[in-house]
Amino acid sequence: MAGTNSSIKLDLAPAPVVILCEPQLGENIGTAIRAMANFGLWELRLVNPREGWPNEKANAASTKAEHVISRVQVFEKLEDAIEDLSLVFATTARKRDMFKPVIGPDVAGNRMNAHIKKDQKTGLLFGRERWGLNNDEVALCDAIVTLPVEPAFASLNIAQAVLILAYEWRRASKADEDLPFGSNEGLPADKGDIVRMFEHLEGSLDKAGFFTVEEKRPSMVQNLRAMLTRTNFNQQELRTFRGVISALERAHEREWKNRDGQKKRATKSTDMGKS
Amino acid sequence: MAGTNSSIKLDLAPAPVVILCEPQLGENIGTAIRAMANFGLWELRLVNPREGWPNEKANAASTKAEHVISRVQVFEKLEDAIEDLSLVFATTARKRDMFKPVIGPDVAGNRMNAHIKKDQKTGLLFGRERWGLNNDEVALCDAIVTLPVEPAFASLNIAQAVLILAYEWRRASKADEDLPFGSNEGLPADKGDIVRMFEHLEGSLDKAGFFTVEEKRPSMVQNLRAMLTRTNFNQQELRTFRGVISALERAHEREWKNRDGQKKRATKSTDMGKS
Repeated sequence: MAGTNSSIKLDLAPAPVVILCEPQLGENIGTAIRAMANFGLWELRLVNPREGWPNEKANAASTKAEHVISRVQVFEKLEDAIEDLSLVFATTARKRDMFKPVIGPDVAGNRMNAHIKKDQKTGLLFGRERWGLNNDEVALCDAIVTLPVEPAFASLNIAQAVLILAYEWRRASKADEDLPFGSNEGLPADKGDIVRMFEHLEGSLDKAGFFTVEEKRPSMVQNLRAMLTRTNFNQQELRTFRGVISALERAHEREWKNRDGQKKRATKSTDMGKS
Repeated sequence: MAGTNSSIKLDLAPAPVVILCEPQLGENIGTAIRAMANFGLWELRLVNPREGWPNEKANAASTKAEHVISRVQVFEKLEDAIEDLSLVFATTARKRDMFKPVIGPDVAGNRMNAHIKKDQKTGLLFGRERWGLNNDEVALCDAIVTLPVEPAFASLNIAQAVLILAYEWRRASKADEDLPFGSNEGLPADKGDIVRMFEHLEGSLDKAGFFTVEEKRPSMVQNLRAMLTRTNFNQQELRTFRGVISALERAHEREWKNRDGQKKRATKSTDMGKS
């Protein structure tokens, strides 16, 4: 889904901080950065990255998310990395032997959004690629976030987990705003024009002998009107559809005019009108 | 987030079909397959994959999602790939010059779930890596799904888009079920035991001279009780906390017994009791 518009200025609005605890590979840091940037997160903190920092592989994998890369902070202790945050969720795929609330990404997104709207800082903690977070790290957090993965195929990499949590925060924070683009709806057609189209169509069908059983005409008209109302015509589409009816009407007339001549072609047009 | 349990049997329950239209790189097909498998999708259809099929790079990138790989179907025409589906969403990051509803992934997830629950087949269509879907391909679909990405950093790869849509379907389909694991809550403590703990604590604080201004005692007790009620103790935790109170109580007693001896240590314990 290509769609980046590099002419748009980046908006570093308040957003959750991402904390990666002892990430092992620079490439994973880079893909996590890209996932953050996709959904408007920009503050990354690393606790003891194994390959050190800065990291060339992380840069390459982050696909030019310079606004995130240039702000990365490195800490020796997790406690220091979350010092200024007042709500931190630990992401983990494993059940823990402690009483800690467990929530889904959607609930996490909503809670982070509510927290940030009160000018509070919130963070998402992700563990090591190979064995995740230790219990003493989880104990520092307010809740565990886990993803509704298929149990038999549950292995997500860090960037995927970051992507879904970042997406859920973005969804929650933009819930009262439009999507990046909306339906290209045009101007809706007025009911009067819709009714005139119905009458045009039904008159045309009368002439074509479509209503073979007169008693069934009212219910057939109702069904046709119900069906065509669901299409939710805009003004241009309604004009187009009136043109379609007229064209088929003329084709029908042509059938009678040319009945001795182009029989085969006319029959085909009439079939189209009834289909 | 490691967590795959290979001893769990895969459940090929009804799920949305993924259609990739003219995918260019096998690796992207593989990572899309992995994302599908993470959230329980298993039916992939390829329309004219540029590198052909089967594809070694796709196999490698799919991290052993054999149950998806072995069922991949290849089509020459998109029309044939969606022949048996009755609800298809086109994923795209670009506004189209046609009247087509535009929805977010959460709405798409809910609609796909409702459709599948009525035993109907539904599909998610993704376009080429470099330029997405053509308008005539979008026109075949029921709605456009777009993601609430940061406009200045909007480039998602196919696997990321598949991951989020697959996640949203899974979330919707499992909305009335538990997460993969729940809170390890233990048995909740009865209110009677909670009240006895409060009385124990407050009696202990009385003895320790915590309530220096008698008139303020009721409101201080209220605040303490409110605060400790929020911890939502389970039975084991309540027992532990009673033990904490008793231990601090004895430390306090010890202060008086040893007032000439270990003054420093006892003072420290009393501070803990008040903190």
